[in-house]
Amino acid sequence: MLLFYQPELTNGVKHLDADESRHAVKVLRLKEGSHIHVTDGHGNLYEARITDENHRKCGFELLQNHPEQAFRTYRHLVIAPTKNMDRMEWLVEKATEIGVDRISLIKCSNSERTVVKTDRLIKKAVSAMKQSLKATLPQVDEIVSFKNYLQNETAQQKFIAYVDFENPVELQTVIHPGEENVVLIGPEGDFSPEELQMALDSGFRKVSLGTSRLRTETAGLAAVHLLNLFGK
Amino acid sequence: MLLFYQPELTNGVKHLDADESRHAVKVLRLKEGSHIHVTDGHGNLYEARITDENHRKCGFELLQNHPEQAFRTYRHLVIAPTKNMDRMEWLVEKATEIGVDRISLIKCSNSERTVVKTDRLIKKAVSAMKQSLKATLPQVDEIVSFKNYLQNETAQQKFIAYVDFENPVELQTVIHPGEENVVLIGPEGDFSPEELQMALDSGFRKVSLGTSRLRTETAGLAAVHLLNLFGK
Repeated sequence: MLLFYQPELTNGVKHLDADESRHAVKVLRLKEGSHIHVTDGHGNLYEARITDENHRKCGFELLQNHPEQAFRTYRHLVIAPTKNMDRMEWLVEKATEIGVDRISLIKCSNSERTVVKTDRLIKKAVSAMKQSLKATLPQVDEIVSFKNYLQNETAQQKFIAYVDFENPVELQTVIHPGEENVVLIGPEGDFSPEELQMALDSGFRKVSLGTSRLRTETAGLAAVHLLNLFGK
Repeated sequence: MLLFYQPELTNGVKHLDADESRHAVKVLRLKEGSHIHVTDGHGNLYEARITDENHRKCGFELLQNHPEQAFRTYRHLVIAPTKNMDRMEWLVEKATEIGVDRISLIKCSNSERTVVKTDRLIKKAVSAMKQSLKATLPQVDEIVSFKNYLQNETAQQKFIAYVDFENPVELQTVIHPGEENVVLIGPEGDFSPEELQMALDSGFRKVSLGTSRLRTETAGLAAVHLLNLFGK
């Protein structure tokens, strides 16, 4: 199955963008009449037929839609990006592959990185979506301050990865399927006591992701994996 | 906490190897009397004091052992390596970080890679162990044929990641804590019907790792994560 991405599908656009047209026509040597699949990244997955083998603007006609069943739980990961962008890129790739609806980036007082080019992360998400034959592209938000993020968070189920040694609660035991579940992952230096308090005051609950000391990006992937296993 | 690795600790070796000596003395500028931690990768985690700031052979004396509590379940991952070695290296890094006791590599009929330099993977495991302050280094086995592997597998709990659409069984529901649990992950092209049958004949049980189509290395990490969550 050859899956292509056209975000404007629902607005009636019936051709691939330049990069994907080149890939389809020059690399894969697809011809007029070839069958492909096209997704809008919003759950629609169309069978399509190439009508114009143009390597800059490859035209197609839609045949049948095989919409992806929406995941029961809205999976939202909020994370302080690592200094090393490769680690964030693999997190976005793996989280998209396992399944995530939204990834938000935050600046914390212990953050080693406060600037992120989200376009590269979105490219990683698009290729992971195509590779894993999914029709849902996660929303990737521009980085904002932790305080700013908290003020705008409206999820029903809010969790912050922060080990409470007196009363450890494992994430998998508190996920509410069918609702929006958001998990906050702090920077390598962890959340500051003030940030933790702000989150608790905003209705977040402390959760543990297990007994191992995990790097930021590994903790993010572990949280997404749990949201998929226990949110269905 | 500065953690160093000396596999020969239990044989009485009281100095760091060349690479770690250079790192300790030249990079970290540690002096005689500096406190460090040293592990043998077998669960022993010693507090130690540098007695000879030699940048080729940094001597130390052991103070106190803080042995790591052994994980209740023996976590064994058996996987057909991906063509791209970077993906295997990150799997080894992340699996070590989350917690795994043994990683075995197999050659399957659909394998794209049949030769692997395990020394690079072991290096990744060592740095991940030190980074995550663990005292357990996973055993990484040389690659063998699938048939050869099956003939020598003696684990009590044997699972093969292979989706059975009639009767899907999720890995987390069948893990037996306290025993050796082994999970087989096939190549990108999956196990052949013959290989699947051989595994079933050897007492392996088909398990699912969730609803998403996962790449080999992602499936491997998902299995390790589940062994840690449900094996404790």
